[in-house]
This record gives sequence, C-alpha cells and structure tokens, in this order.
Amino acid sequence: MHQQISVITLGVRDMPRSRRFYQDGFGWRPVFEQDDIVFYQMNGFVFGTWLESALREDARRPSHSRPGAFALAHNVAARDEVSPLMDRLIAHGGTLLRPADEPPYGGLRGYVADPDDHTWEIAWNPAWPIDEQGHVSFRS
Amino acid sequence: MHQQISVITLGVRDMPRSRRFYQDGFGWRPVFEQDDIVFYQMNGFVFGTWLESALREDARRPSHSRPGAFALAHNVAARDEVSPLMDRLIAHGGTLLRPADEPPYGGLRGYVADPDDHTWEIAWNPAWPIDEQGHVSFRS
Repeated sequence: MHQQISVITLGVRDMPRSRRFYQDGFGWRPVFEQDDIVFYQMNGFVFGTWLESALREDARRPSHSRPGAFALAHNVAARDEVSPLMDRLIAHGGTLLRPADEPPYGGLRGYVADPDDHTWEIAWNPAWPIDEQGHVSFRS
Repeated sequence: MHQQISVITLGVRDMPRSRRFYQDGFGWRPVFEQDDIVFYQMNGFVFGTWLESALREDARRPSHSRPGAFALAHNVAARDEVSPLMDRLIAHGGTLLRPADEPPYGGLRGYVADPDDHTWEIAWNPAWPIDEQGHVSFRS
C-alpha cells in the first residue's frame, strides 16, 4: 500500500467566495470547475473544494458538532514571503488568526482562516526542503 | 508560488489510539515520533498528527465550534482493496460512516472516521492515476 493521501476536500458554503480566496489569494489555477465543486492539481495529490452540504451527504455526516481540529499548511521559500501572502489572503476573504512569529523550531509562521473557517498555516520552514515540483520533505 | 500544500495536521486527543489507527490500520511508518506529535512522509508533503490542545494553541483557535466539514481520501489501486482496508481501519479504532458503494462518477468508495472523528474516504477511482511514487493526478 502506498503511504499517501490522494485527495483533500474542504467543505465550502459559498463557492464564489471560496474561489476568490484560493484563486486570487493563493493564486492557484483549477483543473476542473463546476458550480458545486472545484479541483486543483497539487503536489502529488488533488485538492477539492465542494459544497459542504454535498460533502456531508456523500460522507454520511449529517452533523459536524465536533469534527476535531485540523490545519493545512502552505510553506513558502523565503522568510519575507510569509507576511505578504498572509496579507493577500486576508485581502481575499481570509481572517487573521495569528500574526507571523517565530516558532520554537525556527522559521516563521502565522495562521489565516479561509472564508469557511478552515485553518491555514503560512510558513517559512528552512529545515524542510521544497523541490522543483513543490514536493515537501520532512527533515528533523 | 508553488501550487502546493506542504503539511496536513490532524488534531489528536489520544496519541496511542491514533498511532494504532495510522500505523497498524493504514500501515504507515512514521519519520518522527514524540509523545505529542508524529510525522509521516507522504506523497510530496508531510502528514502530522499532533495533540489537539497543542494545535489549537499554536493556531490560536481556542474553540472549534464550527471548524467546517472536510475529508481526506486514500485511493487504492484496485476495486477489491477498498473493503478490506476499511475493515482493517475499523479493526484498529476507526468507525464506519458509509459502507463502500459506487459513486455516480464510477469506482467504489466508502467512509471511515478515525479515532478523533476525522473523515477518511477510502476509494478506488480508476480515472485518477496513481504513479509509482504514489502521486495522484486529476483526470476529468
């Protein structure tokens, strides 16, 4: 079995609002778009944004009283890219959760919520290399 | 900017219970383990499981009254791998959400919640190729 995650799907309540955040904020280009679902080809997997009602129905999760905490991270190549990207995301519908500061393990990171309140960490982590294809490797 | 997600971090309330699900259920090997955090090197990014209290503190999210719906997917190579993997996950602390059936777009998929109630789709999707490195590509 591959040690892999194939798709990450976020539930979205307002698709134009979500598109603005991901396509204008992050600057990502979709590979597929419909009114209810958008797919983005990412670094080795597929990222989907789907109407939350449809995702709940598909996964048989009628209520999400406690889905549990989670976070997605987008790492950038240089320290001085963190705050400008956070500003751009906030300008496109994101909400500031934590201004960028230095974590104990080094680098720089802050947190922004997307328009559907999903947590994104924007980080510069010089210890974890990002190759030409955007693939990220763990290093301790 | 790379069109990439660098890290997916799930909040976990009981680390041994979570380890059993991911290491014995999925069969994934960690690249780093501490009592409070475990990292797995995945297909082009890093997957982390972290004590939920620490993740909430780090991301400045004291409450998650409505974190929003999301799902992670693990795609397998063949139709007859879906149900055995779902069974193995359930045997290692997972909860059945939706038995495997055929979605409108073809293939086979079911849903299992991990021990912290995070949603996993286990899918055979013959339309989306998985290469030797486990990288998944969108095809419409």
